[in-house]
Amino acid sequence: MRRSFEEGLAHLREDLLRLGHMACEAVALSVDALKRQDVDLAQKVIAGDESIDRLHLEIQNRCMELIATQQPMAGDLRVIGAAMVIGIDLERVADHAEGVASAAVRMARQPLLKPLIDVPRMAEVVQGMLKKALDAFVERDAQKAAQVAQDDDVVDGLRSQVFRELLTYMMEDPRNISRALELILVTQHIERMGDHATNIAERVIYMVTGDLRDLNV
Amino acid sequence: MRRSFEEGLAHLREDLLRLGHMACEAVALSVDALKRQDVDLAQKVIAGDESIDRLHLEIQNRCMELIATQQPMAGDLRVIGAAMVIGIDLERVADHAEGVASAAVRMARQPLLKPLIDVPRMAEVVQGMLKKALDAFVERDAQKAAQVAQDDDVVDGLRSQVFRELLTYMMEDPRNISRALELILVTQHIERMGDHATNIAERVIYMVTGDLRDLNV
Repeated sequence: MRRSFEEGLAHLREDLLRLGHMACEAVALSVDALKRQDVDLAQKVIAGDESIDRLHLEIQNRCMELIATQQPMAGDLRVIGAAMVIGIDLERVADHAEGVASAAVRMARQPLLKPLIDVPRMAEVVQGMLKKALDAFVERDAQKAAQVAQDDDVVDGLRSQVFRELLTYMMEDPRNISRALELILVTQHIERMGDHATNIAERVIYMVTGDLRDLNV
Repeated sequence: MRRSFEEGLAHLREDLLRLGHMACEAVALSVDALKRQDVDLAQKVIAGDESIDRLHLEIQNRCMELIATQQPMAGDLRVIGAAMVIGIDLERVADHAEGVASAAVRMARQPLLKPLIDVPRMAEVVQGMLKKALDAFVERDAQKAAQVAQDDDVVDGLRSQVFRELLTYMMEDPRNISRALELILVTQHIERMGDHATNIAERVIYMVTGDLRDLNV
């Protein structure tokens, strides 16, 4: 029984990391599509979201099954609970990547307002946060998880910087407004991804320490 | 054992409804603060988010406990799983209400661009969706849950309407831009609340039918 539980847990961990990898990939590709105005790539990201949703639902069902059939106690239960909640956050990260990809499709119709530097930078930091949070999950490392919240401040900082810059573009020339607006919505999506990475980190800390504090505030 | 499980479940349901009520209240008050440019009310919403977070964590712990101590099987497990996931969505709705409240504080510094009609309307629809989704949870009514997704189309429709209108304001006069931008971000928050209500509805459908389909796409 214990053995089959360990196997189930290992399988769950694998699937969760696969989901995390798919979500990070979606983030990277969506911003890449935006930067290179590559509609085909953007469409690929949008189409790919379905398989991410499917894997996410699979993971949730596996968690339920594992709890129902193995009836784990406190510690193990926290791991499964973490996997469930982390899966939700990863799936929502992918949804935001889909949002960026949709913006990329719309924005491919006209030349970019400016070469994108800070937005891809934001996305890189977010991917790093997701990777770190998932590593912390696997390694059950609360310290590592706690660092994720600090990176989120970097994301928020970049975002307000981009925001102010785009505001000046809009003030300067009304013809910039709709394009600047699209970029602002993109930064919103990426900022939310960072919040989800922080949620994951919080959950890892809870899993390890049993202490549920809110890093996101 | 069965009896204490039913009691635990009833207690869980009560707390979840209380959380839902607090989230809806936060939505209503935040938009009210925005409309009336009432900074004190907005601050009240922001301060209130902490007690919502606390109740949410309480609910999650109770779910874990209930699973661990009562080891429920398939059907009951789906109810507890639903409560866990619904709690997450309600907490995030409240986070977006906090976002609206923060915008209300910033926007109180200058007169409103226009009297707010569609934005409060959006918020009303979202509150109706949340109420309906939670009723569906209590009544285990998948049909009622399915209606929530239709209301979400209303929210999205209102949002693009507001968006287009604000765009014209920005084109007209650069001095409108920052205020219009704040309103656009507000509509983003309300739209996301609608997505969370739809997530809740999906989860109720899964709880009742065991069929996890994605209404949000």
